[in-house]
Amino acid sequence: MKVLIVAVVCISSLASAADPLPSWNDTAPKRAILQFVEDVTKEGSATFVPVADRIATFDNDGTLWGEQPMYVQAYFALDRVKTLAPRHPDWKDKPPFSAVLKGDLKSAFSGGERALVELVMATHAGTTTEEFEQEVTDWIATARHPQTGRRFTEMVYQPMLELLACLRARGFKTYIVSGGGVEFIRPWAERVYGIPPEQVVGSSIKTKYEVRDGRPVLVRLPELEFINDQVGKPVGIHRHIGRRPIAAFGNSDGDFQMLEWTTGGKGPRLGLIVHHTDGEREFAYDRQSLVGKLDKGLDQARSRGWSIVSMKDDWNRIYP
Amino acid sequence: MKVLIVAVVCISSLASAADPLPSWNDTAPKRAILQFVEDVTKEGSATFVPVADRIATFDNDGTLWGEQPMYVQAYFALDRVKTLAPRHPDWKDKPPFSAVLKGDLKSAFSGGERALVELVMATHAGTTTEEFEQEVTDWIATARHPQTGRRFTEMVYQPMLELLACLRARGFKTYIVSGGGVEFIRPWAERVYGIPPEQVVGSSIKTKYEVRDGRPVLVRLPELEFINDQVGKPVGIHRHIGRRPIAAFGNSDGDFQMLEWTTGGKGPRLGLIVHHTDGEREFAYDRQSLVGKLDKGLDQARSRGWSIVSMKDDWNRIYP
Repeated sequence: MKVLIVAVVCISSLASAADPLPSWNDTAPKRAILQFVEDVTKEGSATFVPVADRIATFDNDGTLWGEQPMYVQAYFALDRVKTLAPRHPDWKDKPPFSAVLKGDLKSAFSGGERALVELVMATHAGTTTEEFEQEVTDWIATARHPQTGRRFTEMVYQPMLELLACLRARGFKTYIVSGGGVEFIRPWAERVYGIPPEQVVGSSIKTKYEVRDGRPVLVRLPELEFINDQVGKPVGIHRHIGRRPIAAFGNSDGDFQMLEWTTGGKGPRLGLIVHHTDGEREFAYDRQSLVGKLDKGLDQARSRGWSIVSMKDDWNRIYP
Repeated sequence: MKVLIVAVVCISSLASAADPLPSWNDTAPKRAILQFVEDVTKEGSATFVPVADRIATFDNDGTLWGEQPMYVQAYFALDRVKTLAPRHPDWKDKPPFSAVLKGDLKSAFSGGERALVELVMATHAGTTTEEFEQEVTDWIATARHPQTGRRFTEMVYQPMLELLACLRARGFKTYIVSGGGVEFIRPWAERVYGIPPEQVVGSSIKTKYEVRDGRPVLVRLPELEFINDQVGKPVGIHRHIGRRPIAAFGNSDGDFQMLEWTTGGKGPRLGLIVHHTDGEREFAYDRQSLVGKLDKGLDQARSRGWSIVSMKDDWNRIYP
């Protein structure tokens, strides 16, 4: 039944002859995508892939939305420090919190990974999962990027929204596979990307089941559970999805292993890297960037058959 | 689109007026299920639940298939010991392996949890995920239950297969949420239950990403990652699905917290426990059983509004 329905959707969308990717210029990456889609959906062909195996995974930060000059989740954490400060009078003199409260981000982040983990735990743990979901929902509804003044959810990439829709219309299940926190992405991913919570894979902290006053809750603990980045991405994909994707989309070396794992399987495969080349409409960065560093991927994309999207040259539009 | 399609499926299946649960007698549990399904699918009603939130979770051992006198996965582990023995000459004199090789299960399991973990690690780790999938696939295709002589996949419960299909036809996403190993269930769950790998949640060991001779693999490590049982079930559900189910089905106290978490939410909820009361057609056990112990659930089901299925009285058929 499901297969039939998807077939009908495909045929009708093809019949309409509308370009499914209007924000993509007619350059190599778009052609590679459309060729791949045609290959895997053409019934009876040697490259046909059944609907059940049409799994596509997308990195989030820098691939579906912006990540400069700082991950969106870092802005959330900093705002949470300010919100929670009245309940933590000791933060006034305690780094890295004191630096955050003074607006001195350079000092705040000078403590390296340890300071960062401390910030994340203080701002992401201690609540129930329902409370945290509400916090994220409330914050994302109003928070704005300090440079563009846009809401963060308006800084998603229109070409990628089109790609998500195009793949779904052709029977793909689309997943987010992010180094960011899974609970930070789920509350808005369905509305913004059309990706339901069960199709979001990400980093996580541990939770604990409790019954409070007769009400069952899951409490978020200040303890890392899983880092879904680099070699963690194939692990997270396998744990969560249990099949190897046939298409993967990323933008940094944190996505390297996800692309390697995806394109290392048999049959038609698509690996694609979004290269941030557009300093005018977005941000230009790659090998030297602290956030979203892309180095190994740039070197090896060609030999591995991965497409590289130059945002400046291959996208005629960035934001919706 | 998806909502429309589901609506059409519902209407056509209702129009056919065929009983969706023919193996269920017309007793209280069946009525509770059908009432619940009607409540959540009736558009415009106060109890209507959108398709996206129609999540139903099913325990596996003892709920979807048999678990007596021993979990199916334990038979797999014992057979694996025999298969692997030639590569491990030391096992001949090393408990618990020596006892398994002599067919002395009582001694093998007398070492308690430690011996059990040792058996599981020796038989479930060390391979790649693809190799392990193949091992499970090969084993399940031929292994038979020592008492019934049936293949284990023929010892699934026909009434539950009907229930799975009935819920899916009404827009539900059906999940397995098992204390058993997720990688042990995934290879055959789609064929047997119609449940794809990405909708199986279970216990797991850690995996590690590696590139071997240019080929990316995930290696299964002899280290527990997560026990998806008791308080672990709501944790596993939240981590994997990210929404609270509205219906949950179990058979033992290992499912208690899953039912508590599921039925503790707002709106219509269904909790159901399969009670093994049929010693003639299947097995009769509950409070005193080592495998699938049901005690607390029996005591509290009524006060919590959970249905109890007596296999003897409420099912007119056990196996397909």
